Amino acid sequence: MRAVDTIQRKRDGQELTRAEIEAFIGGYTRGEVPDYQASALAMAVFFRGMNDAETVALTEAMMRSGEVLDLSSLPGPKVDKHSTGGVGDKTSLVLAPLAAACGVYVPMISGRGLGHTGGTLDKLEAIPGFRVGLSLAEFRDVLSRCGLGLIGQTPEIAPADRKLYALRDVTATVESRPLIAASIMSKKMAEGIDALILDVKTGDGAFMKSFEDSKALAETMVAIGRGMGKKVSALVTDMDQPLGRTVGNALETVECIETLKGRGPRDLESLSIELTAWMLRLAGVVAGLDEARARAREALASGAGLEKFRQVIELQGGDPRVCDDSGRLAKAAYTVELRSPRDGRVAGIACRAIGHAAMLLGAGRETVDSRIDAAVGIVLDKKLGDPVARGERYATLHVNDKRRLAEARRMVEDAFRIGPEAPPASPLVRLVLD
Amino acid sequence: MRAVDTIQRKRDGQELTRAEIEAFIGGYTRGEVPDYQASALAMAVFFRGMNDAETVALTEAMMRSGEVLDLSSLPGPKVDKHSTGGVGDKTSLVLAPLAAACGVYVPMISGRGLGHTGGTLDKLEAIPGFRVGLSLAEFRDVLSRCGLGLIGQTPEIAPADRKLYALRDVTATVESRPLIAASIMSKKMAEGIDALILDVKTGDGAFMKSFEDSKALAETMVAIGRGMGKKVSALVTDMDQPLGRTVGNALETVECIETLKGRGPRDLESLSIELTAWMLRLAGVVAGLDEARARAREALASGAGLEKFRQVIELQGGDPRVCDDSGRLAKAAYTVELRSPRDGRVAGIACRAIGHAAMLLGAGRETVDSRIDAAVGIVLDKKLGDPVARGERYATLHVNDKRRLAEARRMVEDAFRIGPEAPPASPLVRLVLD
Repeated sequence: MRAVDTIQRKRDGQELTRAEIEAFIGGYTRGEVPDYQASALAMAVFFRGMNDAETVALTEAMMRSGEVLDLSSLPGPKVDKHSTGGVGDKTSLVLAPLAAACGVYVPMISGRGLGHTGGTLDKLEAIPGFRVGLSLAEFRDVLSRCGLGLIGQTPEIAPADRKLYALRDVTATVESRPLIAASIMSKKMAEGIDALILDVKTGDGAFMKSFEDSKALAETMVAIGRGMGKKVSALVTDMDQPLGRTVGNALETVECIETLKGRGPRDLESLSIELTAWMLRLAGVVAGLDEARARAREALASGAGLEKFRQVIELQGGDPRVCDDSGRLAKAAYTVELRSPRDGRVAGIACRAIGHAAMLLGAGRETVDSRIDAAVGIVLDKKLGDPVARGERYATLHVNDKRRLAEARRMVEDAFRIGPEAPPASPLVRLVLD
Repeated sequence: MRAVDTIQRKRDGQELTRAEIEAFIGGYTRGEVPDYQASALAMAVFFRGMNDAETVALTEAMMRSGEVLDLSSLPGPKVDKHSTGGVGDKTSLVLAPLAAACGVYVPMISGRGLGHTGGTLDKLEAIPGFRVGLSLAEFRDVLSRCGLGLIGQTPEIAPADRKLYALRDVTATVESRPLIAASIMSKKMAEGIDALILDVKTGDGAFMKSFEDSKALAETMVAIGRGMGKKVSALVTDMDQPLGRTVGNALETVECIETLKGRGPRDLESLSIELTAWMLRLAGVVAGLDEARARAREALASGAGLEKFRQVIELQGGDPRVCDDSGRLAKAAYTVELRSPRDGRVAGIACRAIGHAAMLLGAGRETVDSRIDAAVGIVLDKKLGDPVARGERYATLHVNDKRRLAEARRMVEDAFRIGPEAPPASPLVRLVLD
């Protein structure tokens, strides 16, 4: 089967066989299938889609293009969470220690932020000394010692995906559900996990803005995971306002530590507990979700989660004293307070705009090569539905470089809609796919 | 405008502007836009199409990627014909001399055969010494001396098209009407012509098998030509059986010479006269089509057309004695005669299969790098509707290399359907777009 025939078959709406998908991805990984054929196929997939069988085959082919971790020597279930990304979405730093404290292994390989969204690695790197670039051998060692490990993509994991993703980025073929799902799942399934909970964000600050698109993506990813014989479920959760009260790396890391101490914002704590509970349930270490939630809450209340976080920081070269002294994290030189021009309620927070403003301050990346500043970001003193008085502070910008401050400030001011009434409350978890 | 944005806009069904098409094609020609972006755009165009304005802009951008001949110093209208290609389609060798004999300039840049279709250059090269690879300066000189010139694609003409066509061939993006039309027209319009008659073939032996597809391609090409300010009309003509009685390069060249002597097969003569007449009419050198046909017939009857052919052969380095002595052209070592197993009429000739069989004998190219044998081919002793007696010859294979003879022979035998009745006669010219 020549690559051009595979492209043509997909172009004409035929179902690709597992063998031809493997041949195409294998050839692409080895450099035998050139970029121009891969981009043509990606565009054909954009228009024609892929069914579940094709998407599973694509995911497996991309996963097998590199190393697949074998963690079978670790005595217990291995579980992870993946989020499709949002603004202030920082649950990983809370739930990974909580789940590990409840007796499952969490081999978490994460990404960096881009555009208006943040990334787990950037938050971890706000901790002085923390090394996200462990070798796979070091990763395995950290995992076996404390039950969790938090690293970045390594060259060994799914190289076909890395190559294809970079190509899709410059050929307008990113927005294809099977390609998005296969990209995510090929990396997650290479972690050697038994189970995975997916947190698919929906709303203004999410990659998928519409609920229907988010649901469809969740369904595709669940189908892939199950097609590969893993326990996978998904929650579709709200991203119509940032999660928690902070956006920006050191700010978010402090907020996670606070949450592990039982002093975090309600939405962040609640979603972290819920996702931890799902991890425990999918891992099969509890009888049901209620027990799982109780176990997760207990790990939080007892400080066992915080203890795990302290351990993993130390094992990965970071300074665990950040857990006791937030002054050890980077702090911005200035703060700028935004105050309400009127009495009212927070009726809307344009979520993507908040993420974008944080990026302008230096908290996020405009392009993959941008450098970020861990110290800067935005604190949301008020969130959706909160009452706010005239002159009262609703947001605080943490600033080092003032060059784009005016633009960022205006963006946050425009993002906050303060009106007479609170919006109807919408649930944090919009849908459960189980 | 970044290339990726242009791809995305087309992907999403938006109309591309002339400026962005120029930027994309210009960048592609200079190597700044890589192949993988061009193939992604081509696939997006495959799915979304292009309207006439976009297709005109694309054609102009590809034309302007190289040299556009300026023939304004030649004192008279410049006209050409383009055929989308078929089996035994050899009108160029007849109509170009006829039109030149009638006082218009014919600066014809042609292609080679591929697959089941033949090419004008291959037929010309059957003439000993004939050089199709003239420089543009030599071409201009020949044109000015005898009113016609017959050469192949030069590197200066539409390099963007050459690059894009090679890419489309390996990315399953050939079959897109605007891309096909722009590819053809960018080269033709670079000839510096005032007018063009298009011969769009339809039927089993054509690139476009269905009448509707052929008509649509003709319409698009006419729209492009007129959008570029040229006189362009199109005929959609029958390719449900080979044109004339010969398929194979030297055989076809002899048939053209015979036709210029008034002894050719009726369909070839008739279509050549008709296309010549359209060239004269579009050039504006006659009052109407009837006068144009009369002029073309006169050029044939008087031998003026043959005289022009003799001249151009001599000026392009060929041996003009082939016009008097067909023995100066290559002859195959063997002939194999196919005889009818029954009395009847020729009820069908699978046209593409005849072209394919000729290719197997060595008359055509399996890939662009294949070498061809000018001497070999197929003579159709009977054509659609002809009566044939049991034991009577209906086709003759001209053979040098016997390796694929059995396969070719079976193919021709299967291609001829001899039944009790003649098929309904279908007109040679199926549609006129004027």
